[in-house]
Amino acid sequence: MQISTQMIQVFAILVSALALGVAFWLYTWVKSQPSSNARIAEIGEYIREGANTFLRREYTVLAKFTLIAAAVFLVLLPHPIWKGNVMANVSMAISYIFGTVLSALAGKIGIQVATIANVKAAEAAQKGVKPSFMAGFRGGAVMGMAVVGTSLLGVVLVLMLTGDASSVLGFSFGASSLALFAKAGGGIFTKTADVSADLVGKVDMGMEEDDPRNPAVIADNVGDNVGDVAGMGADLFDSNVAAMSAALVMATSLGGLAGMNVIMVFAYAALGLLASIIGVATARIGKHGDPNKALNSSTYVTTAVYAALTALATALFNFEWRIWGATAVGLLVGTVIGITSDYFTNDNKPPVQYCAESSKSGPAFTILTGFSYGLLSSLPALIGIAVTALVSYYICAPLGAGYGMFGISMSALGMLAIVGMIISNDAYGPIVDNARGLAEMGGLGENVIAITDELDSAGNTVKAVTKGFSISAAGLTVIALLGAFASEVNTAAAELNLPGIEHFDIMNPTVFFGLIVGVAIPAVFSAMLMLGVDRNAQRMVSEIHRQFDTIPGLKEGREGVKPDYDKCIDIATTGSIKELIPAGVVAIFSTVIVGFVGGVNAIGGFLTGNIASGLLLALLMSNAGGLWDNAKKYVEAGNCGGKGSVAHKAAVVGDTVGDPFKDTAGPSINTQITVVSLVSSLLSTLFLQFSIF
Amino acid sequence: MQISTQMIQVFAILVSALALGVAFWLYTWVKSQPSSNARIAEIGEYIREGANTFLRREYTVLAKFTLIAAAVFLVLLPHPIWKGNVMANVSMAISYIFGTVLSALAGKIGIQVATIANVKAAEAAQKGVKPSFMAGFRGGAVMGMAVVGTSLLGVVLVLMLTGDASSVLGFSFGASSLALFAKAGGGIFTKTADVSADLVGKVDMGMEEDDPRNPAVIADNVGDNVGDVAGMGADLFDSNVAAMSAALVMATSLGGLAGMNVIMVFAYAALGLLASIIGVATARIGKHGDPNKALNSSTYVTTAVYAALTALATALFNFEWRIWGATAVGLLVGTVIGITSDYFTNDNKPPVQYCAESSKSGPAFTILTGFSYGLLSSLPALIGIAVTALVSYYICAPLGAGYGMFGISMSALGMLAIVGMIISNDAYGPIVDNARGLAEMGGLGENVIAITDELDSAGNTVKAVTKGFSISAAGLTVIALLGAFASEVNTAAAELNLPGIEHFDIMNPTVFFGLIVGVAIPAVFSAMLMLGVDRNAQRMVSEIHRQFDTIPGLKEGREGVKPDYDKCIDIATTGSIKELIPAGVVAIFSTVIVGFVGGVNAIGGFLTGNIASGLLLALLMSNAGGLWDNAKKYVEAGNCGGKGSVAHKAAVVGDTVGDPFKDTAGPSINTQITVVSLVSSLLSTLFLQFSIF
Repeated sequence: MQISTQMIQVFAILVSALALGVAFWLYTWVKSQPSSNARIAEIGEYIREGANTFLRREYTVLAKFTLIAAAVFLVLLPHPIWKGNVMANVSMAISYIFGTVLSALAGKIGIQVATIANVKAAEAAQKGVKPSFMAGFRGGAVMGMAVVGTSLLGVVLVLMLTGDASSVLGFSFGASSLALFAKAGGGIFTKTADVSADLVGKVDMGMEEDDPRNPAVIADNVGDNVGDVAGMGADLFDSNVAAMSAALVMATSLGGLAGMNVIMVFAYAALGLLASIIGVATARIGKHGDPNKALNSSTYVTTAVYAALTALATALFNFEWRIWGATAVGLLVGTVIGITSDYFTNDNKPPVQYCAESSKSGPAFTILTGFSYGLLSSLPALIGIAVTALVSYYICAPLGAGYGMFGISMSALGMLAIVGMIISNDAYGPIVDNARGLAEMGGLGENVIAITDELDSAGNTVKAVTKGFSISAAGLTVIALLGAFASEVNTAAAELNLPGIEHFDIMNPTVFFGLIVGVAIPAVFSAMLMLGVDRNAQRMVSEIHRQFDTIPGLKEGREGVKPDYDKCIDIATTGSIKELIPAGVVAIFSTVIVGFVGGVNAIGGFLTGNIASGLLLALLMSNAGGLWDNAKKYVEAGNCGGKGSVAHKAAVVGDTVGDPFKDTAGPSINTQITVVSLVSSLLSTLFLQFSIF
Repeated sequence: MQISTQMIQVFAILVSALALGVAFWLYTWVKSQPSSNARIAEIGEYIREGANTFLRREYTVLAKFTLIAAAVFLVLLPHPIWKGNVMANVSMAISYIFGTVLSALAGKIGIQVATIANVKAAEAAQKGVKPSFMAGFRGGAVMGMAVVGTSLLGVVLVLMLTGDASSVLGFSFGASSLALFAKAGGGIFTKTADVSADLVGKVDMGMEEDDPRNPAVIADNVGDNVGDVAGMGADLFDSNVAAMSAALVMATSLGGLAGMNVIMVFAYAALGLLASIIGVATARIGKHGDPNKALNSSTYVTTAVYAALTALATALFNFEWRIWGATAVGLLVGTVIGITSDYFTNDNKPPVQYCAESSKSGPAFTILTGFSYGLLSSLPALIGIAVTALVSYYICAPLGAGYGMFGISMSALGMLAIVGMIISNDAYGPIVDNARGLAEMGGLGENVIAITDELDSAGNTVKAVTKGFSISAAGLTVIALLGAFASEVNTAAAELNLPGIEHFDIMNPTVFFGLIVGVAIPAVFSAMLMLGVDRNAQRMVSEIHRQFDTIPGLKEGREGVKPDYDKCIDIATTGSIKELIPAGVVAIFSTVIVGFVGGVNAIGGFLTGNIASGLLLALLMSNAGGLWDNAKKYVEAGNCGGKGSVAHKAAVVGDTVGDPFKDTAGPSINTQITVVSLVSSLLSTLFLQFSIF
């Protein structure tokens, strides 16, 4: 059967519209769930307000940054305005702004629904696991459908309107740069609040999680929303767009916009979204069912449906089976990597248990064992990524020159195919986490809290798996973006009559120079974020102590005495907005400096160095953080001495270290290396013409 | 003036002999220092015995390993024995064994003198700073002279006798593989003992460092010798040999054995040793002088003398000034990197003070800030390495094809030129650390302990600087070894009529495959070592508790009651010998697997991945470890609440985590990446012929 680019674009738009429709339907459904408890409604309102205030202030800062960046784009990209085509620059700048706006919108939608779904899930928990799970899951699914729907729609529209794959890179950079700041800002906010609330509340005062006397408790719940929901939404919006962009740039260079490769990219992306819609729609849980199983089984349904749909499309439209193969390899290895991350972070498995056991000798051992297992956990994931890249390259290489690299980009797309499902599962986590807090603060009683605990724990387990997935997919995407960079450079070189790039030779000293400097960037970036959390948390810890010391009756929980929640929210907001710009700027400017010093070769090395250390640190931090979190929960469940024991105190230290590891620095590194890759591609023409070496 | 390879080899032999003579003279001097205190002599004897027992058991295991490896060499390298020249295989196997023997000897000499010098330094401290410093420094200098003398002598002899640069690689691999196990084994031993002694003694029982009631106290002092002296000696022996080997392989391929390049390598290496001899000879300290200044000034003397001597030789013998320039760049940047490491680990500087300040909020903040600064500290060092590689390449590239890479190898040699001085300073540290312990256990009183404390603290500061130096030099050496690998492959390819390597293209999928897998290896290696320390320390902690619980009067320090020191030494010995083989085997076998899967291209990527993550982790771990150590000392000096405060307890946790970071895993990574590089070069012929991809 014959199919044209126009047809597939229309199809992609229809699927996106369907996803947005499903999102709207789910949103209405969640909103219509009953809620009656006034206390919960009040606290829920607090959380929503706090999250919206943060988002407003963050977006105000970012809007300024975006406008400045757009002005620079207008003047300089893709070519300096005095040399090139003005319209190309206008279209690049608009694509960039469009990317930031859609990415911001993804965050905003997430917050909107999550701060409603948390209240509904808390109330529904009074009726049992099933209704509470459905409220949490469908709330998360709104996010999943909205993010993937808008990202696909955005890419299709940009390509249709500009007819230029470079503009898609501009769009992608808009999404990534916003995601970079949103992840960093949200990540600092959430961990500032979480760490401070735990340190003073749990460790010093012996309070439970979510005790309403704790002044930081609302900030902590706000943090779940702005960090885990809005930040994560922006992040996966960005990964998904970046994966599509890399594939589109290479597909275009292989056979033009009307070619079969571009059609395949859209077809596979749209079918992935369709599979996610089906997965979401079929998610079910029995009355006393296991939420863990429900989340996993909907993921497997999505995976199977995706594999089947793409195979069908390939047969029907005579797509290349080899490219389908690359996508399938990505999907398969992604699943395997998810399972290995689970091994290192699941409390039924030896690493978590050994870490808990070591905690009996004190916190130093908690840290040493968790850190060591975090390092070990990088091995299977890195081997998985390496094998995927190698195999998908060789599967597609026989199709012609350039197809090997295209195969890698398609394997990244395959790994991200089920991203709609992944986001749904990921957003489910903070919603039920919040629901747990609301149940506690609303005084819904032990039984209800136990139900929300069970839902929360399922969220944590799934999170580890999806994180492995998304880090690996980002790894493959940036490998593909390296290919996109080379192809952008060569296009520009041909236009300018300059020598292009045949290869990035490691033994070329500028490549090596870039590589070694590139290794440092993810390290510096994550250190800046963690120091940001650290500085901020210390401010908040003093504030909490101040409140306990100066507000009479607060410690004792006297009727009617309330802490000043707003002050803590304000500290987290102000602090994280102050810290979020510098780290992002370092990532962007280091790329610019290396490019103008060492030229395009140095940038090739620089990207490679970033990938190498970025993947290592992201895997280490996410997995060590997840491991510490679960080791603490394992001890709290009564093992190794249980609550209050030496092991428990040590495990809390591990968890506190792990929080910024896994929720601030670790997941931001993805975005950081994507941003670096996109900046490189966008500035390739300039680096080619102006550099010292 | 004309000079031949023979002449320069004779000169190198003479300088080596001079160094060994100086070592012997210093050894006699140290031995002749007065000692009279029976208690100190007794404890000193304990330490010596413990160290020798460990060394004997370790070397027994390693001898078996060496013989097996030598048998493999005999059969397979440089060519399978059924295909090639039998004599070449014999000479390779003998060179390998020779390398292991000399490396082991370096460790043995170090232990021999260090376990005498510690006693002498302790006793001399009764007379003041000056005599005690001289005993410690000259004891360290024996090690410095012996290690560098034997390494230069070994390389010259191997090259003279075999006339083949590949055999030098075999010799170097012998040195490295022994160093790998010795560092790993010694590192696990020393930190097992240190961590356990601190945890039970200081934290649980509130005892001082080196309290003789602590059953692990002798093991701790033994550890200083087997880890810091013997392990470090083997390590720097290996770095020095590896740097010379890389330079020699490239020099030979550029102009044959009789060429000017080979002459320059020997000339510069020999002059570096000569400069170190002069530096050692001029080391002086006033009666109430500052040991810190004394150590630094002798380092600067050595540096200046080296620069002057090599400039003179270059002028006299018409060496290439460009190559001299590369060496000078290495030396200069090495010094700068040393200074930046000092910034991150010195307690007069903000990072350490901020970490101590954060410790007031608990151990999680100690860990987070120290870890973050550790990540940040990688930036200046990595930029330094990158700039050195770039500049030295471009300085030498105009001399002809292949000279750029040769320039990098000469900059590594320049950075390591003053290695004799570095080892002297490094070995000084554990000697005076032991002297402090002996003064405490021998009851020499507060004043004497204060003097040894001052000497010890100078040792710690210098250590941070020399570590930055040696990690960076190892980084450059392995970059040079990558060049050596390529030149080995091309020589073999020419013989076999196979296509050689023109470049390692990052976008080649096998290169990329190797690179991504390579990133994981240093992570896995260091995780295995740290888990080894962790497992071992837990065993020892139980043993210490057992002794305190079951030996009546031990806790109270009743007259005549002694702990069972031997049992702790035995646990550390048995444990570390069990743990030392697997980590080393992982490093070697992963190289073999990647080589046979992906061929020489994958190995090029694999080495690069190892360098990238190895340098990052080594810098992170060494500097974070040093920072935590000094933050603890800063708090103990009365800041942030002083001893016994919350900050102090938190800082102790940081120090305990930092111990295996900086003394087990961090410094072993150097050796690990060197071993991987050498295995690659040695097996290059096989990888070229037999691989899946």
